Amino acid sequence: MPRSLAVIGGGVIGLSVAHRAATDGWAVRVHRTAQPGASWVAGGMLAPHSEGWPGEERLLAIGLESLRLWHDRFLGELPPDVVTARQSLVVAVDHADAADLKTVGTWLTAQGHPVTPTASARDVEPLLAQGIRHGFIAETELAVDNRAVVAALTAACERLGVRWAEPVQTLTEVADSDTVLIANGIDAPALWPGLPVRPVKGEVLRLRWRRGCLAPPRRVIRARVRGRQVYVVPRADGVVVGATQYEHGRDTTPTVSGVRDLLDDACTVIPALGEYEFSEAAAGLRPMTPDNLPIVGRLDERTLVAAGHGRSGFLLAPWTAETIAAELEGASVT
Amino acid sequence: MPRSLAVIGGGVIGLSVAHRAATDGWAVRVHRTAQPGASWVAGGMLAPHSEGWPGEERLLAIGLESLRLWHDRFLGELPPDVVTARQSLVVAVDHADAADLKTVGTWLTAQGHPVTPTASARDVEPLLAQGIRHGFIAETELAVDNRAVVAALTAACERLGVRWAEPVQTLTEVADSDTVLIANGIDAPALWPGLPVRPVKGEVLRLRWRRGCLAPPRRVIRARVRGRQVYVVPRADGVVVGATQYEHGRDTTPTVSGVRDLLDDACTVIPALGEYEFSEAAAGLRPMTPDNLPIVGRLDERTLVAAGHGRSGFLLAPWTAETIAAELEGASVT
Repeated sequence: MPRSLAVIGGGVIGLSVAHRAATDGWAVRVHRTAQPGASWVAGGMLAPHSEGWPGEERLLAIGLESLRLWHDRFLGELPPDVVTARQSLVVAVDHADAADLKTVGTWLTAQGHPVTPTASARDVEPLLAQGIRHGFIAETELAVDNRAVVAALTAACERLGVRWAEPVQTLTEVADSDTVLIANGIDAPALWPGLPVRPVKGEVLRLRWRRGCLAPPRRVIRARVRGRQVYVVPRADGVVVGATQYEHGRDTTPTVSGVRDLLDDACTVIPALGEYEFSEAAAGLRPMTPDNLPIVGRLDERTLVAAGHGRSGFLLAPWTAETIAAELEGASVT
Repeated sequence: MPRSLAVIGGGVIGLSVAHRAATDGWAVRVHRTAQPGASWVAGGMLAPHSEGWPGEERLLAIGLESLRLWHDRFLGELPPDVVTARQSLVVAVDHADAADLKTVGTWLTAQGHPVTPTASARDVEPLLAQGIRHGFIAETELAVDNRAVVAALTAACERLGVRWAEPVQTLTEVADSDTVLIANGIDAPALWPGLPVRPVKGEVLRLRWRRGCLAPPRRVIRARVRGRQVYVVPRADGVVVGATQYEHGRDTTPTVSGVRDLLDDACTVIPALGEYEFSEAAAGLRPMTPDNLPIVGRLDERTLVAAGHGRSGFLLAPWTAETIAAELEGASVT
C-alpha cells in the first residue's frame, strides 16, 4: 500500500509537488480552496535573469536550476500552448534606469551568467516606444499562461489519481496522512505558527488584443520606467501587465493608483497597448519571506513545507517539486 | 377605454415618458431589451451650465428648463437618495483651460444665467490638487445615481400599471397601439430610417471609496485638464469618472488609453482618488445628433420620437416627458 501525502494548498506549488509525488507512487490528497490565490493572478514569467539583483545570489541559483528543469522536463508534462514567450527583453527608459540595468548585467556576468546587452532595443522589438534603446536579452527565459498551467497541472494530477479535499484549519485535520506538505502560501503561518511568510500585494492587469491593433510582443518585455518596474507578458489573447508591490495586509482590492501606474508605464514602453481592450484589473497576495527565498524542506518528522515563493512561484515550482520529492524519498526509505 | 401608447426603449427617456403618459391616463406598454444601454453607463449629471458652450443656446435653454422641472416636480416622484450632489464646481488646470472656462462663463452671463466664479477653488473643495484655483460654481446643478433613477422609474411605472414587452425590430410589431414613441436611442434609425442619430462611444469608470480614504467630494467636480475634460460625480459608495468621447461605431469595449486618460485626469484633479478601489470600467454609446439637440416630437399621425439626447439624457428626461405629453394631449383631444 502506498504511503499517503496530504498537500495543503492547490496553487502551482502544491499542484507541482502533488503531481511529482503521485508520479513517484504516493497516494496524494490536495486540500484546496475555491478562492483564487496568488497563482491565479501571477504573470507567469520564468525569469531568473531579469528578476535578478545583487545580493540575491541564492535566489538566482535556484531560479536558474528551476528554469533548466522547466526546459528539460516540466514543460514536457504540460500542453505546449501554456508557453506564451521564449525570451525576455529588459529595457530602460531613462539614464538612471539604464544604470540599474547595467548593475544587473554586471552582476549576472560576475555570477557566470552573462546576458546579451543591446543598444538598439527597438530593432529587437519594434513595438517599443521611440527613445528606448538600452536593454539586455535573456535568451532562455520563458513565460507561461499561469491559469493554463494550473488547469493543466490539475488535470494531470487527476489522471494520476490525486484526490481533492476541503481546506483545513489545523494540521490535526490531516492526521490520517503519513506525511503532510504545507503549501498554502500566505496561509502557511496559520498552520505552522512562526513561519516567516507575509502577504505582499500586487496589482496585475489583463489587456486584450482587439481587431485592428498591433499584435502583442512575442517576448516578455520588462522595463524600468523612471525608477518603477513594469512587465508586459504575452498571452494568446493579449498581454498581462504587472505588477505593483506593496504591503497592505490581506487587501486584494485593485487601487486606482496601482492601475493608473501600470497603464502609464505599460503605454510608455509599448504605446500600441493604448488601443487594446482594458479587460481585467486584479490584485494578488505574494507569499514573501524576509530574505526573498522560499521556505522548502522539513519541519518535523511528518511535516514538510513549501511556501514563501514570493514573486517566483511559477519559476520555482519544478525545483520545489524536486526538492520535496527528495525529502519524500528519504522519508519513504526509512 | 384609455388610448394606448407603445414606448420603444426602456432607458431614462422611454421610462420618463411612459411614467408621465401613464399618469395622464394612457395605457402604456414599454418595449425594452435586457442589454444595458446608455442610461446604465451615464454619469447622471444634470448640468446645463457646466456642459454649456457658445453656439449651443438652444441646448442651454431646454437644459435649464428641464433642470427646473427636475427641481420642481420630477424629483418628487423619486426616492430622495437618487440625488448624490446638489452643486457643480467647474475648474481649470492650466492657463488655456482657465481661458476656456472664462469663455463659458462670459457666454452664460450673456445668456442671462451668470455663474459664480471663484479664484480659490480649493477653499470650496479641499480635495482639489494644489495649484487648481480658477473655477466657477453652478449652484443649482444636480447629480443623480443613474442606475437608481432607472430602477425608481421602472418601479413607479409598474405601480401605474405600465406593462413590459420584448424589443421590436419594426413598427409593424406595435401596430396594435394607438400611438407609438420611438425612444430607443442609437437604435432609433433602425425603426425610422433617416433619423440622424449616431453612436458616440464614451468610457466611464466607477471608483469605490475604501476604509481609510478621504470621503468623495460632495459636489460634482468638472475639470478641464490641459485641454481634456473630466468629471467626478459623487455616488453613495464612491464616484463615477467620465467620460471619453469618440466615434467608434457600436464598439463598447473600454480601451486602455481611455481608462488611462480618465485615471490620469481624475487623479490630477483629486489626488485622493488614487487610494480608492478601481471598481469598474465600462463604455456606453451616446445617441448623438448633428446639432447636439435631441429629436423630440411627431413623425407622423401615430408615431412620435424622443431620441438623440447625446450626453444629456438624464438632464432632458423631464423636459422630454413634458414635450411628448403635450403632443399626446393634442392627439387624445383630436
